[in-house]
Amino acid sequence: MEKLKIAVVGYGNIGRYSIQAVKAAQDMELVGVVRRKESLGKKDPFLEGIKVVANIEELGKVDAAILALPSREIPNTAKSLIEKGICTVDSFDIHGQDILNLYKSLDEAGKKHNASAIISAGWDPGTDSVIRTLLMAMAPKGLTYTNFGPGMSMGHSVVARSKKGVKDALSMTIPLGTGVHRRDVYVELEEGADFSDVEKAIKTDSYFSHDDTHVHAVKCVNDLRDMGHGVLLERKGVSGETQNQRFQFTMQINNPALTGQVLCSCARAVVKQRPGCYTLPQIAPFDLVGENIEDFILHTV
Amino acid sequence: MEKLKIAVVGYGNIGRYSIQAVKAAQDMELVGVVRRKESLGKKDPFLEGIKVVANIEELGKVDAAILALPSREIPNTAKSLIEKGICTVDSFDIHGQDILNLYKSLDEAGKKHNASAIISAGWDPGTDSVIRTLLMAMAPKGLTYTNFGPGMSMGHSVVARSKKGVKDALSMTIPLGTGVHRRDVYVELEEGADFSDVEKAIKTDSYFSHDDTHVHAVKCVNDLRDMGHGVLLERKGVSGETQNQRFQFTMQINNPALTGQVLCSCARAVVKQRPGCYTLPQIAPFDLVGENIEDFILHTV
Repeated sequence: MEKLKIAVVGYGNIGRYSIQAVKAAQDMELVGVVRRKESLGKKDPFLEGIKVVANIEELGKVDAAILALPSREIPNTAKSLIEKGICTVDSFDIHGQDILNLYKSLDEAGKKHNASAIISAGWDPGTDSVIRTLLMAMAPKGLTYTNFGPGMSMGHSVVARSKKGVKDALSMTIPLGTGVHRRDVYVELEEGADFSDVEKAIKTDSYFSHDDTHVHAVKCVNDLRDMGHGVLLERKGVSGETQNQRFQFTMQINNPALTGQVLCSCARAVVKQRPGCYTLPQIAPFDLVGENIEDFILHTV
Repeated sequence: MEKLKIAVVGYGNIGRYSIQAVKAAQDMELVGVVRRKESLGKKDPFLEGIKVVANIEELGKVDAAILALPSREIPNTAKSLIEKGICTVDSFDIHGQDILNLYKSLDEAGKKHNASAIISAGWDPGTDSVIRTLLMAMAPKGLTYTNFGPGMSMGHSVVARSKKGVKDALSMTIPLGTGVHRRDVYVELEEGADFSDVEKAIKTDSYFSHDDTHVHAVKCVNDLRDMGHGVLLERKGVSGETQNQRFQFTMQINNPALTGQVLCSCARAVVKQRPGCYTLPQIAPFDLVGENIEDFILHTV
């Protein structure tokens, strides 16, 4: 069987863990990593033996690209790859209207250029979305609560770090129960930066403005950093006319490692889909695993 | 939007709960219930206002049939419906080679007669299979344990009840941890039946012979019957190179109510698939819920 040719675009935390996941997958070949031009010269033992380029076209044939980029860079990058006929997977993490806009844009581009995309395919949105959907099918009436943490939110940390005067930042998500969260943001200030300006810039950003957000100045953000995270997803609902059906999903995981793995599994699935764009619940879970259907039915179903 | 025309075939516990689920689904119309000829005359307030027939062809157009039958009756019934071009869903619950045989038979028939089938679509096999598959995609290396109960196994109870000399039977599944179970079978004997013959017939049936099975004679099985059930599904595994990723899914549910609901949600999905046969992990979870894609992306993903 020919191996799937996978490129990883971006080389932050998620990029590194995606590379590990692709290397561990026996049906995949990592054809290379795409980085910004200015980063190409940097020595990095982790990248030894891996082709690193600034332009994906230097990698030859690519079946699917894993976009390990900040969410706000995803829409343009994904669209330009789809237009080249390369399937993409990403973990775009801004819920609601922004996902819908990305979906529409890539669905149109995919159908036009004969490629497919799986968007928002981390763990939330992503695998949690799959479980929320499955629980709706099991108990159509009822309420689902998604409780995150305690753990670092990578998306929120990136946004906090992008604010003027911030040298480094860590945003912790604290679950208060029944889907309510507090955000504790730890910032390391640049010399001469004003804390109250930074605090205001963070609290008014749309990533933070809907939650109870507390900003704390600390000497060294790196000393606080732990990539463990968790989720508790609960549904209580009605199957037919039967009330009080109860479901819980919990996990305790290394956050970027899980995101990288989900992206990798989605790269396997994306090439099997008809052209267009998909969120993870629109993908048959079987497509995510590299199994023969008969073995799968015998051992997993 | 035209409503999906659904027939329920069989009228035991699962049939009754399937009927409730179909009636509660706003996008479905229950066109009728198919029963054995000899049961047609029986009065039953639950069936008031519902067309009850012995032959599905008396119901006119049927988009999908929910097969609420004992597993051992499924293969023939499903095949004959598929050959009439009617999509089927069932909760066939014999894991392993039996599912594979059913899959192959209905896949061939479906492709020939332009109909599709979703098989083994209860909660295990069924929704648990979906979660096991998703967890494999999230942590490809590792072990999954499925712990059932304590609760009544409907399939095992039917088999125990079918033995000579048994008036009524209840088979309880007792979880011993890490996927190991004991089966406690409570039997009400017919007059003159020999307990040790019954015990031997149950213990040597392939449904029971792989587990530690204890058979108990009781005066009234009905006094013990509670349809609550539970599951604890656990995986500890590796994402990429990151060890010790931990996942748990638990539920406490009314067993036939959940099975009936899953069958109903699958009836919605089966008509959207290309001809052939599918197990539940081969179905995109989004197809199970009756949602508009844009609302779904805004509110569930």
